[in-house]
Order: sequence, then C-alpha cells, then structure tokens
Amino acid sequence: MHNRKNPPGHFSRLTIEMYLCLTSYFITDPAMHTSQQLTQLIERYIAGLTFPEHPSHLYAPISYTLEEGGKRLRPMLLLTVCDMYGGPVEQALPCAGALEVFHNFTLLHDDIMDNAELRRGKSAVHKKWNHNTAILSGDAMCIYSYHLLQQSPPALLPRLMAEFNKMALEVCEGQQYDMDFQFREDVSMEQYNDMIRLKTAVIFGAAAKMGGLLAGAPEKDLDLLYEFGTELGIAFQIQDDYLDTYGTSEILGKQIGGDIEESKKTFLAINALNEAGAATRRALLATFADHKLPLPHKIGRVRTIYDSLDIPRITRKIIGRYLENASGLVARLTVDEQTASPLYGIIQSLADRNK
Amino acid sequence: MHNRKNPPGHFSRLTIEMYLCLTSYFITDPAMHTSQQLTQLIERYIAGLTFPEHPSHLYAPISYTLEEGGKRLRPMLLLTVCDMYGGPVEQALPCAGALEVFHNFTLLHDDIMDNAELRRGKSAVHKKWNHNTAILSGDAMCIYSYHLLQQSPPALLPRLMAEFNKMALEVCEGQQYDMDFQFREDVSMEQYNDMIRLKTAVIFGAAAKMGGLLAGAPEKDLDLLYEFGTELGIAFQIQDDYLDTYGTSEILGKQIGGDIEESKKTFLAINALNEAGAATRRALLATFADHKLPLPHKIGRVRTIYDSLDIPRITRKIIGRYLENASGLVARLTVDEQTASPLYGIIQSLADRNK
Repeated sequence: MHNRKNPPGHFSRLTIEMYLCLTSYFITDPAMHTSQQLTQLIERYIAGLTFPEHPSHLYAPISYTLEEGGKRLRPMLLLTVCDMYGGPVEQALPCAGALEVFHNFTLLHDDIMDNAELRRGKSAVHKKWNHNTAILSGDAMCIYSYHLLQQSPPALLPRLMAEFNKMALEVCEGQQYDMDFQFREDVSMEQYNDMIRLKTAVIFGAAAKMGGLLAGAPEKDLDLLYEFGTELGIAFQIQDDYLDTYGTSEILGKQIGGDIEESKKTFLAINALNEAGAATRRALLATFADHKLPLPHKIGRVRTIYDSLDIPRITRKIIGRYLENASGLVARLTVDEQTASPLYGIIQSLADRNK
Repeated sequence: MHNRKNPPGHFSRLTIEMYLCLTSYFITDPAMHTSQQLTQLIERYIAGLTFPEHPSHLYAPISYTLEEGGKRLRPMLLLTVCDMYGGPVEQALPCAGALEVFHNFTLLHDDIMDNAELRRGKSAVHKKWNHNTAILSGDAMCIYSYHLLQQSPPALLPRLMAEFNKMALEVCEGQQYDMDFQFREDVSMEQYNDMIRLKTAVIFGAAAKMGGLLAGAPEKDLDLLYEFGTELGIAFQIQDDYLDTYGTSEILGKQIGGDIEESKKTFLAINALNEAGAATRRALLATFADHKLPLPHKIGRVRTIYDSLDIPRITRKIIGRYLENASGLVARLTVDEQTASPLYGIIQSLADRNK
C-alpha cells in the first residue's frame, strides 16, 4: 500500500474532454474501465429504465426528467470508486442509478419550491405539467430510487440503505436551511457551509463511499472516500453559486440569476455582505429586495457590487482549496497513485467546469 | 393445520371497543399478544420516534402529523399477522412504523394536492405551515419510512423492501388515477376498483404480507395474506367514500364532502351516475360542477340524489361483500381458526367503523 503524499495541486485549465483522454492514457490496468466506458454504462442503464405507460401523468415526467442532459456526476463517482477497488461495476449500476434518480427527484421538487422555470434547457416539470403532477411524480421518483437501490447485492443492502437514508434525509435538511436562509440577512459562512454540505455535498460523499462499499474497500478508506466526496461536493456547490451569477444561460441550460431573484444566500452573497462597508451592504440588500427590478438589471447591479469586492477571485480561490482538500484525501487512501488516478481526474475535470 | 371453511359472515354492530374485549377473550395462547398490547406497542414505538430540533420547519410538521389521532390500522395489521404466526413482534415494530410513517406521508402530500383544510381535526400541514414546507416535510417522511424499514432483520430486508417499494409506487399510481378521474365523467366501476386497489388497498395487502414475512409464514399464506389485506383495504376505501358523504365531521376529524367538492369519482358517485336516468344524471353532474354552491348545500343536494337511488344500501352491501371475501381468505390460511381469530376481529371491527 502506498500513501501518496504529494497530490497534484493545480486543476486549472483542464476540461472534461481533456480528462477523458487523460484517464484513457493513465489506465494501464486492463481490468479497469475508462471513464468513457463508465459513462456509457450509466447512460445505457438509465436509458434502459422503462416506466409503465399508465398513468401517463405520473410516469411521463419521470422519463422526461431522466432522459438527457444530466452530468451523471454522482453515479460516475460511485462507479469510478467501485472500479478503482476492483469491484463489480455491473452490480453497482442499480445503486449508481438510485443516486441519479434520487438527485433528479430533488431537482424536480426543488424547482417547485424555488419556482424555477427551466431545468437543463427545458421547462421544469411543474411548468410543463402542473404543481400536483410535479409533487406526485417527484414522490414516485424518490420511491423509484429505492426500487433501484433494492437491486444491489442483498448482503450489502442493509449498509447501502443506511448510507442512502442518512444522505437523503440530510439533503432535505439542507434544502430546508436553504429556504430558511432566504428570509435572513445574518447567515454566517459557517451556517452556509453546513447548509451546502447537507444540500449538495453529502450525496457526493455517499456516492464515493457506496462505491467503496460495493467493492469491499477497507473500512478506513470508506471514511476517507466519504470525506473526499463531501469536499468535492462543497466545491461543486460553490461553483454552482458562482455560475448562477457569472455563468452563461445557454451553456448552463437554466436561467442565470435564479439565486439572486430568490434572495438565496449563496457563497457570493454571504461573502459580499461580510466584505462590504455599510453603504455597499445596504445597496446589495436593497437590490436583492427590489422585486420590481427586471432580472437582467438586477444581475448586472449585483455583479457590479460583487466585482468591486473582488468576490469572483475569492470564490475561485476557495473552490480551489476544497478541490485540494479532496485531492489530499485521495492521497491517504490505501490504493496506489496510479490506481487512484481516475479520482484525480474527476477533481481536475470539476476544476474548470462551466456548466 | 386446519382450514376453516365457514368464517363468520356477519359483521354488523361490532365496534372497535367490543372487538378489543373479544380478542382478549379469544386469545388463550399465552404467547400471543392482545390487540390492546399490540396497540400499546405501536403507539409507544411511534411516540418514541424523535426528530432533530433543527431545521424545525422540516421536522416539526412530521412530529405534528404522527403525534396522535391516527387509527394505526396498517401497523396493527402487520403486527397482528406477525404475532399470529408466532413471529417476533418487537423486531417487526420498525417495519410497522415504516408503514404508518409512509401512510402519513401520503396523507400529507395528498392534502396539498386535494387542497384539504383539515386532517384528524387539525389544520393540514400545508395550511398550518405552507406549501413548500408540506412538500419538503413530506419528502423527509417518505425517506424516514425507509430509515425505519432499514432497521428490520437484515436477512429479510431485500424482500421486505421489494414488497414496500412495489406498494409505495402503486399508491402513487392510485393517487394519480384519482386525480385524473376528477376531470372525467365516464369512469367505470372497474376503473374505480383498480384505482382504490392501488391508492388504498395495496398498503393493507403489504402490511399483512410483511407481517407474515417477518414471522416466516409459509409462502402460500403470504399470497393469501396479501389478498386478504387488499380486500380489507378495498372495503375500507369504499367506507371512506361513504363516510365522506354520510359521516359526521366531528367524529371523522375532517371536513365531510371533500370528495364532492373536488368532484372525486367515489364509489357512490360512480354508482349513482350508472344507476341514474338521464335527467338525474345531468342534475348530479351539474351539482358537482357548481363551484358557487356553498358546500353544505352541495352535500345536501348530492345526498338527496344518492338517497333516491338507494346508493347508501348498495354501498353497505358491497362493503359487506369485500369483508366476506377477506374472511374467506383468512379461512384458507394454514393456521387454525382460533389462531386466526384476531384477523376475524379486525374484519369485524372495520365492519362498523364510523371514522
């Protein structure tokens, strides 16, 4: 066993496409899958999930939600870890699928709660159908994720299910804090961190750990994998916050500025409120509270304030720090550096995401 | 093993209180629990479920929903069956609790979809808090039911979970059909039966079967138990339809006439539409569609039409038939008549329910 002490520390200009080439190059163990192969496996698996034709209002929104456009990050993380420990990737597919379906269920219900119009460039389910359909289809998706999870190897089911349940309840807690924070001006950075850990990061943690569980990874590694996934997930959410203000609607497939419109306490907003002097702080809060201001103008004003406070640079720096933490955790796993290279690849591919 | 061929066929004036005395009397096997003991076990178990204090908007509605007033029919059915086969009732409690929590989750979300004001004499969650809170707390309850289920004996978990998932998806299907039928005038009795089997009955079927699974009942009995629970559940739902028009708000703890207000295709409505001549049919449909008519008047008019068509008697007759079917299925179980007496007791207690 080899503890890698000096993980690669810079993840700057690497795109997902470059990462795909990179991992194909790195992987010399013929038993390991390339990331393209894993992507293909999970895409085929999800495309192969068929739902009854009736009642159509229940199942059509589920197919619609799952059909395309997702990054499949969570199932890919699970499969990558499972593969890395020599686990049976085919047997891990239902569990990977469960995470993806559960994630999509949370998006579907979150879109109702946040009154979001678009998701992945298409109408959100509650807009395309209606509120009741979105509630009930979401419920069915949540249950369906357990239906997939149940197809995991029976001996592992109690532990996988415990992990999944803990994560799923925490995701609900995170969403509740996120909604609560909309009505508060005094959210601290610590409270924000707790919120995104619950809302977004624990599903990455669970994905990595469950991949390890499915492959029979050592107990010590399971905890490290959970921490690794969580750090990755926090970086991912801060990037999400960043892209909601500085991203491009066409690339993201959703309206930008949604967080601004809903007065979400993002990493950017909390940092700006902390950094700003009294006058700028008042101006920022007034902009958030101004529901008559058209959204493009509102985004413009908020950006100007953020830029003046150097928020974009601060944000990118913190994202880098979380990704470095993730990398440090990979280095502490019992697997050697070459075997762990797909995880470094995932870290690097996240570093430069623009959607 | 004794197949009881002549089950008791009349369930007329027996109240739940009388049943409790009856089963205490019947049960001579000292290893079996009385229904009071089982009720106490499940009530204590549910009262012992503690939720985190924060986020309060997520967990307070769950405690509020579970705290009191439920009939606990589904967990009682599970425990009764488990006990009847000499199973370990204490080990069955998490599974029984999972069914009760899941059932309450569906009520919470159904109340949003049906825009119901009251539940068990208290404000529905979406009225006491708000829509978003009701959606998210419901989600957490659904997940929490799996958290309880996971605490079942590990060796049985894969099968229990398969049973639970199938039931849970079917309940969503039933709710979707129920909503779809609101906008249709041509719902057949067969379609209605399918709908209530899914929406209401399968959870009774799953409860009985899971009770058998937990006790290691013979495979043949598991199928019969499922059928028995399903027949019982259909009778229960038709009674629910009946009580929504002919029940008493104070006893039911919810507004009566909710089905009429929402143009639900109940057993009564479908029978009336089938039985009525053209003029009465038009009058009934016009009354359903009249959204300006105050609800008490609307209920009065609908009752007058139902009474003229003898709907109450037809309804009670059909309920009796389903309860007799249930009784016939109990008679086919491998257990002897005396051992099965708690199930006859449950059938009898349902026969005269008024809430």
